[in-house]
Amino acid sequence: MAFTEFCRLDERSVIEYVKGVPGLWSKLELDDDNIITVKEIGDGNLNFVFVVANSVIIKQALPYIRCIGESWPLTKDRAYFEAMALQEQGRLTPHHVPQVYHFDPTMSLIAMRYLEPPHIVLRKGLIAGIQYPLLARHMAHFMANTFFFTSLLFRSTLDHKREVAKFCGNAALCRHTQQVVFSDPYQISQYNHWTSPYLDPDAEALRQDDLLKLEIADLKSKFSERALALIHGDLHTSSVMDGLVHQPNHSKAYKEWILQTIEDTWNLFYDKFIALWDEHRNGAGEAYLPAIYNNPEVQLLAQKRYMTDLFHDSLGFGAAKMIRRIVGVAHVEDFESITDAVKRATCERKALNLAKMLLKDRRKFEGIAEIVSAIRQF
Amino acid sequence: MAFTEFCRLDERSVIEYVKGVPGLWSKLELDDDNIITVKEIGDGNLNFVFVVANSVIIKQALPYIRCIGESWPLTKDRAYFEAMALQEQGRLTPHHVPQVYHFDPTMSLIAMRYLEPPHIVLRKGLIAGIQYPLLARHMAHFMANTFFFTSLLFRSTLDHKREVAKFCGNAALCRHTQQVVFSDPYQISQYNHWTSPYLDPDAEALRQDDLLKLEIADLKSKFSERALALIHGDLHTSSVMDGLVHQPNHSKAYKEWILQTIEDTWNLFYDKFIALWDEHRNGAGEAYLPAIYNNPEVQLLAQKRYMTDLFHDSLGFGAAKMIRRIVGVAHVEDFESITDAVKRATCERKALNLAKMLLKDRRKFEGIAEIVSAIRQF
Repeated sequence: MAFTEFCRLDERSVIEYVKGVPGLWSKLELDDDNIITVKEIGDGNLNFVFVVANSVIIKQALPYIRCIGESWPLTKDRAYFEAMALQEQGRLTPHHVPQVYHFDPTMSLIAMRYLEPPHIVLRKGLIAGIQYPLLARHMAHFMANTFFFTSLLFRSTLDHKREVAKFCGNAALCRHTQQVVFSDPYQISQYNHWTSPYLDPDAEALRQDDLLKLEIADLKSKFSERALALIHGDLHTSSVMDGLVHQPNHSKAYKEWILQTIEDTWNLFYDKFIALWDEHRNGAGEAYLPAIYNNPEVQLLAQKRYMTDLFHDSLGFGAAKMIRRIVGVAHVEDFESITDAVKRATCERKALNLAKMLLKDRRKFEGIAEIVSAIRQF
Repeated sequence: MAFTEFCRLDERSVIEYVKGVPGLWSKLELDDDNIITVKEIGDGNLNFVFVVANSVIIKQALPYIRCIGESWPLTKDRAYFEAMALQEQGRLTPHHVPQVYHFDPTMSLIAMRYLEPPHIVLRKGLIAGIQYPLLARHMAHFMANTFFFTSLLFRSTLDHKREVAKFCGNAALCRHTQQVVFSDPYQISQYNHWTSPYLDPDAEALRQDDLLKLEIADLKSKFSERALALIHGDLHTSSVMDGLVHQPNHSKAYKEWILQTIEDTWNLFYDKFIALWDEHRNGAGEAYLPAIYNNPEVQLLAQKRYMTDLFHDSLGFGAAKMIRRIVGVAHVEDFESITDAVKRATCERKALNLAKMLLKDRRKFEGIAEIVSAIRQF
């Protein structure tokens, strides 16, 4: 069977597909019987994900949103932009991005490395109370490298504009994000849902909060109009696999470890980012020319202002994501796995109130330690 | 002669060119003798401009910067983006943009309407002390229409991203602007010049002013990374032709008229822009969805914040342009026509100090009337 036209793969046809691509076939680690196992494991909202022979991941984008169905169409071209982003991120942080083996534009399909057990989705690890001692360092490294090297701090204007033009084609997915993150939680939408009836007044309050709406407009504008760097765009704990297993631990100490990890992640990111900036100060980047930013005082001021803006943006976007995960279309297992609705609603309300405060007051925070203090108060 | 390859036109070959394009030839208003007059009138920094038979303008971009010469190359593709922008602006404000008759990508050439006398370049009119009673209204109309209809207030995300991708190709000209507006005035550059020796300490002070350098970095980032709308990009008094001649007038009243025109221009722009926003509130624009911004209070707040941000940006970019016109590569006739260097330097220093204050303190101003008051104090 030749896959010369787009068709949706299933657990049978995906084997045919892999057989037809020599570069993929050779990646399969087959046992003596040459039996090829296939498992569909996608638990995200958009795509289908197959593990083939415990060796290769086949990720296919369909022309609609998986968690809703064909009633919500979405261009499958998004696979092309995902493949491009993965390859660029892999070039910049090869140790933290699964290798892309193959991209098929006709089939909207990415073949990439399978992360075998003990790798599990980080969100599930956190819910199980597992500590990952390298988590903050790895995340900081990934974020600092991918951000810095695709920003105007490193790239020339001509390179930057060329890349921006390339990714402008991903408009449909950006528009989808605009809707589910920056719009739907603040208006009545058929896709919204929440822990009803307990959070009904909370959801209603979001739709009545004028100051919150001003802040979300500000972030939406940044998201829609500003091309600062090539960012992941969906970097949450379900988008990370982690393999180092430590003893599960649900004690108070585990909560402390999570708070510490939040703090470490930002601080390590900050330090790594500034180190990259200092290292490449005299490179091709055209944002801060060394002949202008030519003394330690102004360099420090410029870096401080840049990082403060980035910090406030991060708080805002993080808060927007918290809100949309509680009252929007796509929720998260962290809360959904709490079966007692009253208990779930209580946790969700705390998160919602924290997020609302962060969205409105984010510019008042000067460092991540203040955020951790604020979390403790909720 | 067929113009199948790029060549620089002169006053002779431009006639051959026009003869070869039927749509242009028919635009010429020839007298009985069929004598075709040609005059090169370009007084800008980048391009060559011919008037043919007092009927048609031929504007050609060469692969370098006119006011410097071949030692400063610049892609001639810029003519393509200029033609696209002119056509889009003409569609949005046909009464305020000269009609484009013809665009030739090979020759990097735009043929457009000639604005016959009494039209003159506005800068020359202002230097001559001429009042233009419709100036503020016309400028406000042009700015409000072109900005609003190319922003996300009116355009859908998909349209907006497609247009952004198209204009990303104009990177070389953006990079040129980055250099001459946001970089060179704040560093030693072979192209910089100023009224020396009188402004030597002032130019030196710019290169030592850390706070100013932070502000210019902020504006450079907005200019380089943010695609808010299709703006003119070089909208100063030499980019405007005006035809209504009133009595020249160098009295105090003329200065008052200029200040009043500054104030009127912003206020009329503001009103027109808000009127367009209100009118198209339920259109395709995806920035402020009516289901979210659903009561008069939040609509007012959102508009006020948007316009305040725009005001502060305008003050910043305006100040950056004032600085670069005094110490950078390209100066303006307003000052250059003052032959007494001491007197010229005195005027320039006042403008420089006003610009520095605006660049640093722009966020403290709440309305255009405060700006006019500040100008009076300099």
